[in-house]
Amino acid sequence: MKIIIVGAEGDIGKAVCDELGPRHDIIKVGRSRGDIRVDMADRVSVEAMYAKCGNVGAVVSTAGDVHFGPLGDYIEETFMLGLRHKVMGQVNLVLAGLGVLNDGGSVTLTSGVLDRDPIRMGTGAATANGALGGFVRSAAVEMPRGLRINVVSPGLLDVSVPRYGEWFPGHEPVSSKRVGLAYAKSVEGVITGQVIIVE
Amino acid sequence: MKIIIVGAEGDIGKAVCDELGPRHDIIKVGRSRGDIRVDMADRVSVEAMYAKCGNVGAVVSTAGDVHFGPLGDYIEETFMLGLRHKVMGQVNLVLAGLGVLNDGGSVTLTSGVLDRDPIRMGTGAATANGALGGFVRSAAVEMPRGLRINVVSPGLLDVSVPRYGEWFPGHEPVSSKRVGLAYAKSVEGVITGQVIIVE
Repeated sequence: MKIIIVGAEGDIGKAVCDELGPRHDIIKVGRSRGDIRVDMADRVSVEAMYAKCGNVGAVVSTAGDVHFGPLGDYIEETFMLGLRHKVMGQVNLVLAGLGVLNDGGSVTLTSGVLDRDPIRMGTGAATANGALGGFVRSAAVEMPRGLRINVVSPGLLDVSVPRYGEWFPGHEPVSSKRVGLAYAKSVEGVITGQVIIVE
Repeated sequence: MKIIIVGAEGDIGKAVCDELGPRHDIIKVGRSRGDIRVDMADRVSVEAMYAKCGNVGAVVSTAGDVHFGPLGDYIEETFMLGLRHKVMGQVNLVLAGLGVLNDGGSVTLTSGVLDRDPIRMGTGAATANGALGGFVRSAAVEMPRGLRINVVSPGLLDVSVPRYGEWFPGHEPVSSKRVGLAYAKSVEGVITGQVIIVE
């Protein structure tokens, strides 16, 4: 299967590539790296990405910016970043993909642990994660042509601990292998409308 | 207690006023009706609302616009409406309220049933509802001065059936009385960081 992976160079993206790469034809997409570049928050850029990729069976997103900061320091601009980029950006991949993904194809998005297990300064991310859960549960009932949609909600990855561990006191890291498997379940399996929790 | 109710003239707002009105001093706020006017999506307007109200013990929001439409018809503008208005608007009430609510006060927001029990054309609402759930679970851990925050997620109200019932096939309406009680639990009780489901 030809699979687009947006955010392929990130920690989660690499886990997905390690899992799916041996069995599929991977197109790595990123904002500044990869085979093809995209600005997810811009629908036109997303449509151009799909046009360059041709027919694909699945798209996986492991990308999305959010602002981290103390609750009282958020202003509209910093709070909206996650809604515009992590949410609307990933939603753009779905909306623009409805007409171009192969029949029976799938979209797999990425949220995260912070809406169910909060940390300090994580409210922007928690809000975006919750939004993505609501989005896939509802979008799944209207996907045409047998298309499926899920969102993976991983805990802190083992490989991310050196950079982010101190922000997540007491969080038990999850193995990159298990995170990769969650994406395989969404892409190669049958489920739709699910929040796939990896913890 | 002095309580601000934003969206007091809506079906949910009236249920809240019926429940809390006999015991508290209610300030009715709306976009186009009420004692005081506010544009929730504008932080400056929200700050002006609080300035007019003086010290309050609780703020309840039952307001928030979303766009309803088939999944494939959403464009960025229509999809973002719910994120800008129902999500950012209600978040503005929280952020601007952090410094002005009385110690131990509360904020109670409103989401809805569509992120857990989807209908056709409801993906914008489902996304906003999910976002609000993630927001309150995370924001609760950073609220200063004993402030609490919850979101009420009601099913379709009995009084709303004549207007909206045909969009919600098979949904069992919930009584306005029970919806009002959920807000009383949040405002007068002790819980925080909860999604209070009424179904």
